[in-house]
Amino acid sequence: MSLTAPVTHANPLPTGSQPGVTTAPLPKSQKKYLAGQLHPEIRVPYREVSLSPSKVFNSDQLSENKPVALYDTSGPYTDPDVAIDVSQGLAPIRTQWIEKRNDTELTERQILNYGGKSLLSIPSLQRQPRRAKSGHNVSQMHYARQGMITPEMEFVALRENLRNQVLKEGLMDLERKSRLKGNPLGAQIPEDITPEFVRQEIARGRAIIPANINHPELEPVIIGRNFLVKINANIGNSAVSSSIEEEVEKLVWSIRWGADTVMDLSTGANIHATRDYILRNAPVPIGTVPIYQALEKVDGKAEELTWDIFRDTLIEQAEQGVDYFTIHAGVLLKYVPLTANRMTGIVSRGGSIMAKWCLAHHKENFLYTHFEDICEIMKAYDVSFSLGDGLRPGSIADANDAAQFGELETLGELTQLAWKHDVQTMIEGPGHVPMHMIQENMEKQLKHCDEAPFYTLGPLTTDLAPGYDHITSGIGAAMIGWFGTAMLCYVTPKEHLGLPNREDVKTGVITYKIAAHAADLAKGHPAARYRDDALSKARFEFRWEDQFNLSLDPETARAFHDETLPADGAKEAQFCSMCGPKFCSMSITQDVRELAEKTGDLKA
Amino acid sequence: MSLTAPVTHANPLPTGSQPGVTTAPLPKSQKKYLAGQLHPEIRVPYREVSLSPSKVFNSDQLSENKPVALYDTSGPYTDPDVAIDVSQGLAPIRTQWIEKRNDTELTERQILNYGGKSLLSIPSLQRQPRRAKSGHNVSQMHYARQGMITPEMEFVALRENLRNQVLKEGLMDLERKSRLKGNPLGAQIPEDITPEFVRQEIARGRAIIPANINHPELEPVIIGRNFLVKINANIGNSAVSSSIEEEVEKLVWSIRWGADTVMDLSTGANIHATRDYILRNAPVPIGTVPIYQALEKVDGKAEELTWDIFRDTLIEQAEQGVDYFTIHAGVLLKYVPLTANRMTGIVSRGGSIMAKWCLAHHKENFLYTHFEDICEIMKAYDVSFSLGDGLRPGSIADANDAAQFGELETLGELTQLAWKHDVQTMIEGPGHVPMHMIQENMEKQLKHCDEAPFYTLGPLTTDLAPGYDHITSGIGAAMIGWFGTAMLCYVTPKEHLGLPNREDVKTGVITYKIAAHAADLAKGHPAARYRDDALSKARFEFRWEDQFNLSLDPETARAFHDETLPADGAKEAQFCSMCGPKFCSMSITQDVRELAEKTGDLKA
Repeated sequence: MSLTAPVTHANPLPTGSQPGVTTAPLPKSQKKYLAGQLHPEIRVPYREVSLSPSKVFNSDQLSENKPVALYDTSGPYTDPDVAIDVSQGLAPIRTQWIEKRNDTELTERQILNYGGKSLLSIPSLQRQPRRAKSGHNVSQMHYARQGMITPEMEFVALRENLRNQVLKEGLMDLERKSRLKGNPLGAQIPEDITPEFVRQEIARGRAIIPANINHPELEPVIIGRNFLVKINANIGNSAVSSSIEEEVEKLVWSIRWGADTVMDLSTGANIHATRDYILRNAPVPIGTVPIYQALEKVDGKAEELTWDIFRDTLIEQAEQGVDYFTIHAGVLLKYVPLTANRMTGIVSRGGSIMAKWCLAHHKENFLYTHFEDICEIMKAYDVSFSLGDGLRPGSIADANDAAQFGELETLGELTQLAWKHDVQTMIEGPGHVPMHMIQENMEKQLKHCDEAPFYTLGPLTTDLAPGYDHITSGIGAAMIGWFGTAMLCYVTPKEHLGLPNREDVKTGVITYKIAAHAADLAKGHPAARYRDDALSKARFEFRWEDQFNLSLDPETARAFHDETLPADGAKEAQFCSMCGPKFCSMSITQDVRELAEKTGDLKA
Repeated sequence: MSLTAPVTHANPLPTGSQPGVTTAPLPKSQKKYLAGQLHPEIRVPYREVSLSPSKVFNSDQLSENKPVALYDTSGPYTDPDVAIDVSQGLAPIRTQWIEKRNDTELTERQILNYGGKSLLSIPSLQRQPRRAKSGHNVSQMHYARQGMITPEMEFVALRENLRNQVLKEGLMDLERKSRLKGNPLGAQIPEDITPEFVRQEIARGRAIIPANINHPELEPVIIGRNFLVKINANIGNSAVSSSIEEEVEKLVWSIRWGADTVMDLSTGANIHATRDYILRNAPVPIGTVPIYQALEKVDGKAEELTWDIFRDTLIEQAEQGVDYFTIHAGVLLKYVPLTANRMTGIVSRGGSIMAKWCLAHHKENFLYTHFEDICEIMKAYDVSFSLGDGLRPGSIADANDAAQFGELETLGELTQLAWKHDVQTMIEGPGHVPMHMIQENMEKQLKHCDEAPFYTLGPLTTDLAPGYDHITSGIGAAMIGWFGTAMLCYVTPKEHLGLPNREDVKTGVITYKIAAHAADLAKGHPAARYRDDALSKARFEFRWEDQFNLSLDPETARAFHDETLPADGAKEAQFCSMCGPKFCSMSITQDVRELAEKTGDLKA
């Protein structure tokens, strides 16, 4: 099995073909970088889309349209100047930042029992692990609370702010600005995201930068209600299907379309080696659910799990560089009976494993009783908590019930404990919730968890559309994003039915980019709307290519257009296939403007 | 060109193949009918899905699952006992009801200038037209206000109530009923939908039953905020592409997946004949935008439109049987200049045509000045108004602006005028609106239009995803449906890019069924949740076939499942491809239940 993936500057591979990694830039897009001011060594990537000129109204002249700068999650894969070799991994851009802090040291790998068959058949991509020097806490929260602005913090400030700078040159007039000012529902997003604002938000616990010191390939990302809403894509093989190569390509593919973080939910063989390849090739934070691997080590028998096995698994994964861990420490013994009469019981895998363990031993969840021991590990590597909602509802019938909200209160208690250790923490949320019950989830989370970032799966707003759960959940995700959720975990069309393939991953990511952006618009994020405006202006002016290139998925937009009007000339046409030339409202509106100017009717 | 479409009891045709009409019933589904009590002659169709038995927990016994009755829009096409012949049209089930009222008479066709090339090349499907006897008003609103409960009213009462009856045998326990009671936001949906309740809602103007007396093939549908949320699918050829056969199949295809009404937006040649074929084969209400055809008659020159030409077009289409007309009577001269500085001007075709006419003549919109003349035509055939929002925003930047809301106030004024004539009326709404500005649309509509049913296009919650506008708009549609919109006009993935093909129509319909159902759940419609519950129960019990068959799209659900676990045995498996047997949370939950019973932990 070879993992050497050649650089492919080609169109995306068709589903099911031999996977390489996809590296071509998106159309008319150029990778650019901003330098830091506090930390001149940082290079913050963005994507610049160049546009064609507009025709000046009632004249033959052209007026330039400035290129549009976009937040770019795709990493070096879309930079033609970077040679990609999956068997080597990405350049470790953070190593210098981390070493400069002089509070970490390289160590030997402590854990060698990985479970499964890993390391036997797969060439290794391990780096020597690093951990905090004795007595040190290397979390971004700790630095923030000490008043330090790290390179990671300046990086995310520039990254978030990017669009503000463009905006100010921009398209926004005052009437619009006032009419469309947004309803932030308690979020407080400043006009400018400064590094100091980032530091304050991290120190307060209201945002996190998942950034394990063993993941130097990372381009840092901030997750918090006062920043752009982020999305996560889940990948991972299972006992039934898929290979390491496929998973690495799914990672690259998902960030190409906009995933801000990726969770590796692998449960099958080669779980350790798969994770190595994913991490070494990931410019985005990687999350895992360590209990899955711990369970592999006891051959699937939940009742045989022990704290020692779990602890070793945490250390093993922290040494590899995992940026955040889902930990189901809120599934308490007392909550388990509350699920007995549910329509769909416990649907979280981690939740059901821990529930089974609790009942089998009739003891409290060891993740809860050892929570501070876990904190000690987290702060030695800067792994962030993603406190798992093991009792989330798996159907509309079970939404917002006593089991779910009981666990949420416990997660609030654990948040305070994590913060005592300066460990960065976010909270996972549901699940299946009808629309009118979504806001209660957000309000309770903000209250119990003191504004720690909320990270939700959907929620799905109805159960009746398997095959379309990206949509049932995209509705709930957009709403809860508006209400204050910081990161939305995507759901693909295959949810409840099978493992997502490449096309499903793309559909899930694009759907969730829509939800996240719709939420940013509703919150009135000062930089959210200019991309809509640039695209709408292009649409109104029949600049078809610009409309495609500014969209979330230029390839699909172009392909759909070309199905009915394939000729290149049609892309300059002042009409499209929907109405034909005689009926085009956009074209008639141009006439209306001319007429109105002549008759003086524009003066109103 | 032959229109004889043989009955096909086959799988849906692949996209792009020779279209017949699709008539096979959905899997495990049987067409059944309820008889009326006030009007024993009516037969209200529904679809019954049979289920497999459940295994009794901790035992080898089986327990039956009662079949589930579903609202069924698909008409006779899914009844294997009915022979379908597109060249003959459907059986005229309402003729007897209409004749019994003894207030109509058959007439000669008044209008023979149809524009275009129609009638020359296409065999006709015309019936002799019927109209109100002199001095009579044949609208359902008029009957309702006279205290009559028509067969149409009892039909829709039984149809809406269907699921209540099932529910009462049902799955709902008291704790759930209280927890999930919904937030109707001012809607007042009774536990039972009685014919008298329907009559009151029609009389009040809060609901309509679009039911032209020249459309006897219709299975009546009610549209109003106190009923199930409905969806509309747009079909129609344009100058650029598509044929009559394709349009008839799109009709049949869209109602197969759940469209409650269909609008024929054809603009090309054969516009009259296309409409004949659609109406004679439509068991659902058909809407049109008559100004499109009127414009054909003046060869696309908006300024040459006259009241006479428009009036003749209304009569022509009313004689054919169109159930509702979109009429852009609210585009007043004074509003046109308000659109001049918009990002995307006027994006409604009808709106831009009327704006151009107003400016060219510097006169008030003739649809406005002749509004009561139009009412006279409407009530002679019972055509319902769909008062068009010609100034709806075409981009986020233009949402909720002065032009849009000015027009909405005028539509409110026209609603009162229509009601003076007992003409059924609904109001069209936007468009492109960010999430936080959606509710204002609903509130203003309820206020200005005195609770006349709202009928919205989306709204799209962001502009940046051409190719995915079923999703950008599905989010807004679900929300505005919850807030009180009575009917949601679908948007397909091709919106802004091209004409939808068969697959796009299906995707649009399913997406909007999701939005409408999510809205019903949020409003707390007493009968909405039992289908979710039945499906979730099947999911939890690993009854895969039942899960597929209860879903909105059984074919896609099954195909997605089979991609990873194709064997038939897998459909009884107690796990799926997502986690594999060791990690299945559903399976672990069964263990949890057993353990909890043994240890007494279920008593909590």
